[in-house]
Amino acid sequence: MTDLIPLPLGFSTTGFRCGVKNDAPKLDLALFVSDRPCSAAGVFTTNLVCGAPVKVTRERLPRATARAVVINSGNSNAATGDRGIADAQRMTALLAEQIGAGPEDVLVASTGVIGRFLPMEVLLAGIPAAAKTVTHSPEDFLRAAQAMMTTDTFPKQATATLKVGGKTVRISGACKGAAMIAPNMATMLCVIMTDAKLTPDDLALMLKASVQDSFNCISVDGHESTSDSVILLANGASSATIATPDEQHLFQQALNLVTTKLATDIIQDAEGAHHFVELNVTGCRTRDEAFQIAKAIADSPLVKTAICGADPNWGRIVSAAGYAGVPLLETDMSLVVNGFPLYQSGTPVAFDAKEVSASLRDHRNVTIDLTLIHGTAKVRFWTCDLTKEYVELNADYTT
Amino acid sequence: MTDLIPLPLGFSTTGFRCGVKNDAPKLDLALFVSDRPCSAAGVFTTNLVCGAPVKVTRERLPRATARAVVINSGNSNAATGDRGIADAQRMTALLAEQIGAGPEDVLVASTGVIGRFLPMEVLLAGIPAAAKTVTHSPEDFLRAAQAMMTTDTFPKQATATLKVGGKTVRISGACKGAAMIAPNMATMLCVIMTDAKLTPDDLALMLKASVQDSFNCISVDGHESTSDSVILLANGASSATIATPDEQHLFQQALNLVTTKLATDIIQDAEGAHHFVELNVTGCRTRDEAFQIAKAIADSPLVKTAICGADPNWGRIVSAAGYAGVPLLETDMSLVVNGFPLYQSGTPVAFDAKEVSASLRDHRNVTIDLTLIHGTAKVRFWTCDLTKEYVELNADYTT
Repeated sequence: MTDLIPLPLGFSTTGFRCGVKNDAPKLDLALFVSDRPCSAAGVFTTNLVCGAPVKVTRERLPRATARAVVINSGNSNAATGDRGIADAQRMTALLAEQIGAGPEDVLVASTGVIGRFLPMEVLLAGIPAAAKTVTHSPEDFLRAAQAMMTTDTFPKQATATLKVGGKTVRISGACKGAAMIAPNMATMLCVIMTDAKLTPDDLALMLKASVQDSFNCISVDGHESTSDSVILLANGASSATIATPDEQHLFQQALNLVTTKLATDIIQDAEGAHHFVELNVTGCRTRDEAFQIAKAIADSPLVKTAICGADPNWGRIVSAAGYAGVPLLETDMSLVVNGFPLYQSGTPVAFDAKEVSASLRDHRNVTIDLTLIHGTAKVRFWTCDLTKEYVELNADYTT
Repeated sequence: MTDLIPLPLGFSTTGFRCGVKNDAPKLDLALFVSDRPCSAAGVFTTNLVCGAPVKVTRERLPRATARAVVINSGNSNAATGDRGIADAQRMTALLAEQIGAGPEDVLVASTGVIGRFLPMEVLLAGIPAAAKTVTHSPEDFLRAAQAMMTTDTFPKQATATLKVGGKTVRISGACKGAAMIAPNMATMLCVIMTDAKLTPDDLALMLKASVQDSFNCISVDGHESTSDSVILLANGASSATIATPDEQHLFQQALNLVTTKLATDIIQDAEGAHHFVELNVTGCRTRDEAFQIAKAIADSPLVKTAICGADPNWGRIVSAAGYAGVPLLETDMSLVVNGFPLYQSGTPVAFDAKEVSASLRDHRNVTIDLTLIHGTAKVRFWTCDLTKEYVELNADYTT
């Protein structure tokens, strides 16, 4: 967790304490700044109730001249009406002024409690002060990742490199998120930077594809947040251009490594979780059907509590598939948990419950393989168990 | 809870211990027998993975010559393949033989663990023995309700009467259910008896309408069970016929009283719950849209844990509405919790968090009123909070 992650060329970051989180001496402001204009793309929550920063940033993307992202934690600036919009715009203008950019070239995201106005007085002082502290160092990138955290217990960062035409391209990202996590993202914020050169439209397509198999394939609690944002900036500082199909393929693969690492980090840090669950649903007619089945299983509190209790109660898994909205017969399904076959073509398999339970108890990582006989489409999905600690953490969050 | 509930004329019931629950000296077999042929209708789980008893009973309904229902608890006979079907048919044949009916005139339901074969040896002896003990007494009706219980902490019964053409009609029912409860029903089984005379088709229509606003409007955990069954028997023993629209309206009202009481009893007994939540979503374009919003709120673990913690975190409620799949704007919604306005037309209302929290802490019954501005359609939905006790109960159920 403490490996230092380098930034791509031309980017500087910082994590700063400005006082949005007034109840604890914690970093609460993260800045990501490029020394030159970037192609930029974003993917956002599909929740119709969305935070003001989402509204402000979404309409600025994709664009060819982005320069920076400003993020605060401790307050999501969601459900805050017109005043919230004005506050989000003000945050971008404050940073833009410091770095000599147009206000619309700065993007913004916020995470924290819903429905409270931002304490603009601390941001008015904090953003200019923070802007003076950005550097290219991995240490400050780590601080930026820390400044995005809310209930996260560790900062989440990832990096990957690729070679394009003899030049090295780096992709580095940071994200936060530990609950209110559901497909179509959740209270997760992510900023990814690369020194490759891409058009905004290409960047948007590749980001969408990457999010589809990473952040959209994780669920902690099925509650889709109002604030999810993934922002990708490409500043071209490596002078490597991603344009041909081969180059795009390579870049997509490297980007997927980064988004998958960040998305699974969120599940590793899921609130109160004791188990990290990888769910492979295969043999489906379409990816959509595989996804629907995976999501129904991942969101079932009965499946999640069974895993918490190391209980090989496979009936809960199979029955969740049954209500996923996908046409299927019991006899179409076979289930393997941690390598143990439990259910084969509609019939229970005799197994040693003590042995399977011990496997669930002794391994934090759980693998559930559900195989259908409908086709070749599949999905990989990540979730966690539901524990008493999750209830404790969430029963008393605002008060 | 201990009020004795009378049966309609011509019905006898019993609760019996035959040994399906071999780990505890508990009642596990319930019989409901009419002394004459009944019109019968049913509503069943829509889960594509459904128990053998559901398959057997569903294809026998509606019918004009039903005589009885046999129910065991402790084993759901679900995911048990062809052998499960044969076992369910065998259960009906065993009771049919005792009461001089055709095997297809007996209906069957089972509840309990999924994926284990029924212990037929104990049922082979138990069903004939139990059949000898049925009576018309309220005490035996109570025992029948107790014999349906799994994790329920109290038996659930209801009754209503109406006058038709100078004759008294009674409707009495019993149900079980405490988890795996979601719209389209859940592990809930319900038998309702009436001494009115109706055609099977009328009965089916009225039962469907009644279930729509009762059992389909409750959710404990959003996990739709494989075994849900509501069976309604009408034997005509009161010699009152329900045929005209006026009579049907009266009967529907009385039936709705019974199903609503039984459905809300399930939520009152929800596993580990500290709060009983009534959710009124009004002002919608269609009932379907109101229902979608209510279900999204009711199934959100973040809403449920907030209520558990007496935390007036209204942002979680409004944001759940935002991902319900219903077109809406934040400004379309206003929210009142326990009578306190918290959110008005898209903007937070200033409120005393301590006062609202105290109200949530001090009242087991919580009312959430979410009002939209789209139309006049509405729904009433019942759910509960998510507590550490729910996790405890469900983390270790089979092992």
